[in-house]
Amino acid sequence: MENNCIIANIDGVPVTNDDLLDRGLAYGHGLFETMCLHEGSIPLLDRHLARLADDALKLGIELDQAMVEPTINNIQQSLVQQGITHGVVKLIVTGGLGSPGYKNPDVIRPRIIALYSKPTAKQSEQQGINLRYCDYRLPWNPRLAGIKHLNRLDQVLARSEWADDCYADGLMFDQNDCLVETTCANIFLYTTGLGWITPSLKGAGVSGVMRGLLLDEIFPALAVPVTISEIKIDLISQCEALFVCNSVRGITPVIGLLEGNILKPLAIGSRTKVVQLALTDNYPCFK
Amino acid sequence: MENNCIIANIDGVPVTNDDLLDRGLAYGHGLFETMCLHEGSIPLLDRHLARLADDALKLGIELDQAMVEPTINNIQQSLVQQGITHGVVKLIVTGGLGSPGYKNPDVIRPRIIALYSKPTAKQSEQQGINLRYCDYRLPWNPRLAGIKHLNRLDQVLARSEWADDCYADGLMFDQNDCLVETTCANIFLYTTGLGWITPSLKGAGVSGVMRGLLLDEIFPALAVPVTISEIKIDLISQCEALFVCNSVRGITPVIGLLEGNILKPLAIGSRTKVVQLALTDNYPCFK
Repeated sequence: MENNCIIANIDGVPVTNDDLLDRGLAYGHGLFETMCLHEGSIPLLDRHLARLADDALKLGIELDQAMVEPTINNIQQSLVQQGITHGVVKLIVTGGLGSPGYKNPDVIRPRIIALYSKPTAKQSEQQGINLRYCDYRLPWNPRLAGIKHLNRLDQVLARSEWADDCYADGLMFDQNDCLVETTCANIFLYTTGLGWITPSLKGAGVSGVMRGLLLDEIFPALAVPVTISEIKIDLISQCEALFVCNSVRGITPVIGLLEGNILKPLAIGSRTKVVQLALTDNYPCFK
Repeated sequence: MENNCIIANIDGVPVTNDDLLDRGLAYGHGLFETMCLHEGSIPLLDRHLARLADDALKLGIELDQAMVEPTINNIQQSLVQQGITHGVVKLIVTGGLGSPGYKNPDVIRPRIIALYSKPTAKQSEQQGINLRYCDYRLPWNPRLAGIKHLNRLDQVLARSEWADDCYADGLMFDQNDCLVETTCANIFLYTTGLGWITPSLKGAGVSGVMRGLLLDEIFPALAVPVTISEIKIDLISQCEALFVCNSVRGITPVIGLLEGNILKPLAIGSRTKVVQLALTDNYPCFK
């Protein structure tokens, strides 16, 4: 199949390479990682690659470390050559080239793509962001829940609900009005009764690398309990602290929540600061 | 954004064009049509393009006919030049190039891809196919239901449940065990009590062009009633006729259904033949 000459065009311009046969484009058959580039290195790279390999298997894609190395090495070399030390490195792994039809090729030869982009976080957002509620509801799909796969129309449609830069992100719920995540981050909240909680991702959502780090390392090191549970939409009005997290920005406190037409301010509070400090002490890149 | 030089590689080989920024690959932000090429022309092209434009809007992509024409014209010219008159033409429309993040670009400039592939239907399959039941359940998602979008992991995972060529396709159900479609076709079934019925696609499934043609034109021309309704899994064992349809193969009768370990034969019967004949009389390409 590879190096076949195909009959195809993009916007009327003939294309002869076989990239258009990639199952990533055809079906979103693949996964991605969005990783921080900090002082020329990629923090949490091992966690990213472990998650990638685990989840790839769930999509029928066998991925070993040796396949990913040339891609990572090449992008790091390119970045060094251009004197670039900070930003975001995105890894995309696809189900490779395929014949027409949903059936997997007899042997899936994954394609591994690395792609650099400039740092996007605005300085002001480091201090805290405003969130809004998305109307779009995530479907319940236990087979895909947790996986950072390439089927992201849910997020695209949710993110298209607003254009106002005042809101950096939006809360996303499932069809039972349970909180899942934001469009691009996981979420932790604190209430007096329940302590720190983060949504269960059994039926929807992405099991983020930063969420994993906080649950596995940071909260335990602080001896602060944290619960994974179903979080009904009503609970949010009771929360005393709220932060979002991902592996590019680390922890970002939420300082305002648009409810109806009112932007309700939220204090960052010492509880969030404690977690944030524990993270940045161990991983200064997320300062 | 366009013609930007990017820092990226595929499998360690540097890439400098900006194709990797396509939101079709990144998020499955796009749609596709799989169309029959018959004697050098594309039957039902108008229906395909109308559906494409309608559904693109639901994904925030404004598509007018003039954008699609160069792509269609170019692939038809290429095929004529190579003396190719039969096969499949796939159109892919994506959300175009984008910056990192789910947010749509201020102006979405769709990319339109046309891609030819050889006819795939085996002669034997024209006469009838065997189906099996897929275990994978389609999520309930009214916002995406009906759209032939690029988020197709559901179909990829369902199709990966079997390798035996004896079964051409599999029945797919939603999480309430209601019949939706097969992995790559819509479905019609006949029972004595209910007559011809086809599943409602309110929460899942693709609203196929051939399904639309049958419902709008072919059944009405025959004055044969057909109902769109919820179809529970139990009803299937009562059906007296069953066919699948899509716009590449037309109507394909189902002649066997794997239930447990037993391949239960199904007669094609005169009722299916009447519908099939009405289709092929008007559209000989689907003979």
